[in-house]
Amino acid sequence: MNLPIGRLAGKLALPQPYLLFLGDTTEASYAKTAFGLADWAADRCVGELAIGGCTVSTGLPRLSPAEARAAGARSLVIGVANQGGIIGDNWIAALVEAMEAGLDIVSGLHVRLGSIPALIEASRRTGQRLIDIRTPPPAIPIANGRKRNGKRLLTVGTDCALGKKYTALALHRAFLDRGLDADFRATGQTGIMIAGGGMPMDAVISDFEAGAAEMLSPDAPDDHWDLIEGQGSIFNPAYAAVSLGLLHGSQPDVFVVCHDPSRTVILGMESFKLPSVEEVIDLTIRLGSRTNPAIRCGGVSFNTSSYDADAAEALMAAECKRLGLPVADPVRGGAGFDALVENILA
Amino acid sequence: MNLPIGRLAGKLALPQPYLLFLGDTTEASYAKTAFGLADWAADRCVGELAIGGCTVSTGLPRLSPAEARAAGARSLVIGVANQGGIIGDNWIAALVEAMEAGLDIVSGLHVRLGSIPALIEASRRTGQRLIDIRTPPPAIPIANGRKRNGKRLLTVGTDCALGKKYTALALHRAFLDRGLDADFRATGQTGIMIAGGGMPMDAVISDFEAGAAEMLSPDAPDDHWDLIEGQGSIFNPAYAAVSLGLLHGSQPDVFVVCHDPSRTVILGMESFKLPSVEEVIDLTIRLGSRTNPAIRCGGVSFNTSSYDADAAEALMAAECKRLGLPVADPVRGGAGFDALVENILA
Repeated sequence: MNLPIGRLAGKLALPQPYLLFLGDTTEASYAKTAFGLADWAADRCVGELAIGGCTVSTGLPRLSPAEARAAGARSLVIGVANQGGIIGDNWIAALVEAMEAGLDIVSGLHVRLGSIPALIEASRRTGQRLIDIRTPPPAIPIANGRKRNGKRLLTVGTDCALGKKYTALALHRAFLDRGLDADFRATGQTGIMIAGGGMPMDAVISDFEAGAAEMLSPDAPDDHWDLIEGQGSIFNPAYAAVSLGLLHGSQPDVFVVCHDPSRTVILGMESFKLPSVEEVIDLTIRLGSRTNPAIRCGGVSFNTSSYDADAAEALMAAECKRLGLPVADPVRGGAGFDALVENILA
Repeated sequence: MNLPIGRLAGKLALPQPYLLFLGDTTEASYAKTAFGLADWAADRCVGELAIGGCTVSTGLPRLSPAEARAAGARSLVIGVANQGGIIGDNWIAALVEAMEAGLDIVSGLHVRLGSIPALIEASRRTGQRLIDIRTPPPAIPIANGRKRNGKRLLTVGTDCALGKKYTALALHRAFLDRGLDADFRATGQTGIMIAGGGMPMDAVISDFEAGAAEMLSPDAPDDHWDLIEGQGSIFNPAYAAVSLGLLHGSQPDVFVVCHDPSRTVILGMESFKLPSVEEVIDLTIRLGSRTNPAIRCGGVSFNTSSYDADAAEALMAAECKRLGLPVADPVRGGAGFDALVENILA
């Protein structure tokens, strides 16, 4: 599953192929960068590197930095994001070893690589670069709210880390397969790594959040679609500001609600109940209609990775009937996903 | 009208007294910093300075930088904020003259003083400081959503620049007059200049917006009130992200809706209709209940500066009856404002 990268506008030119760094992660949700790259840019990933305690894997070969370099890797990509986006002290030795083996370091975390003395020292010593991809462009304007030409779709969610990027990528591929003119618009570190460009929405200063979203999906021909990767959730008590600025600035014509039916509480904030899909549809229309009164829900994307095929099928069929909307898992694809695409385009 | 500054916790120690700089402003709404300082810190303002084209005034004496210095001023405060928060090229000569007269420059604009070569040069030459008060503290955490002790009130609005800071300051004074334990919590440049500390919410990176609001109003005794200055509006297509992060992180028990009944469209975005007070109440409860299910509207604060006393009185009486809530103008004060305070405390 490799994205047709030539279709994507991008400002960054990251050194590829990658070695994916998993750190000591034990929670798959926090390794979404690594999984996203393995899924959507596998031909540009030579393998993965973990340190003691790590219990997750992308399925790519485990390689030492030297083995990865010998296999052609040009950079180590930090493929994990813990809450807060910090670099663990216990990661440093592995990152230094990677630089000594001839790899640049690429990070989309909040904490800048260039703020860590041990990494700066190793960079000076080895000549390898520290590349922070989470730095927004310098001149983001305040949003103006003007309705732009072209069509836009935004993936929204009941929470973080349950398939918003994946859904936008899968829809992009499906749109291209149908011969439509479409761009994937990346808003997070993994998406930007896959697309080679985008807007790191959660690193933008709040006052410019909606303006950054306007900049990300500029005027386009009437029949062009921007498929915009969502961030967070308007129901997430930590990240709703990011989600609302992205919603207002994206002024989507269509949104798709992404949901993990096995999740009952907000990830990392167990005292907060997960909202229902209907609540997300209702509040997204209410808030989104401020900048696009014609906003509508195109359907629902389920992350059914914790169900077997039959259970997933039955669950989605029941939800489709209950909600009166297409419900599909883009990883499973099939007729359900085709129905979702058709309803978006209807 | 001078704030009892000793009651306020603050990290900044700005050089006072101030000379207020009005630039070439022609729209009073954009000079709210100058007006706020003149209203709430008049004993720390020696006068005002304008350049050609300026049509607004705080009522303080117009002084040259040299006259202001002779009258005791220690800094020039940029008292205007255009859309985007930039420093006009035609302001530079006046700012350089102020430094040559012995004044530091204090700014709360988005654009940093230290990014402007002519000001850097003048600062080096004169030894005067360039002080940007809009720099958030370095270690803001991601919000955790935990319910904190103590009581909180947030002023929210139908738009920007119509009295949210003023209302919070007036309520703070009224609470102190009643012998209550209360702090004014500043979130914008003027409020921070008045209070001597606070959190510049619109300069915080989006991912940390709610966390910054949590930091601003920490745990407090059960009978303590934080009176938190609101920002923007959840209906403002440019700034709603700021407003929602502040709402979620502040987890207010009570909010007061601030409104200018003469305004019909969003300031600077004329294609967007101003929301009604009822719409703001309804959406604030819906969004705010995510972090404080007990949130309630304490009443409405009207900015009736464009009405005469009788018209203002009649309008507020009618709205009070229609909404079933106290409606008061804190600038006019009186029984209406007392009723608002009583309803907040009820």
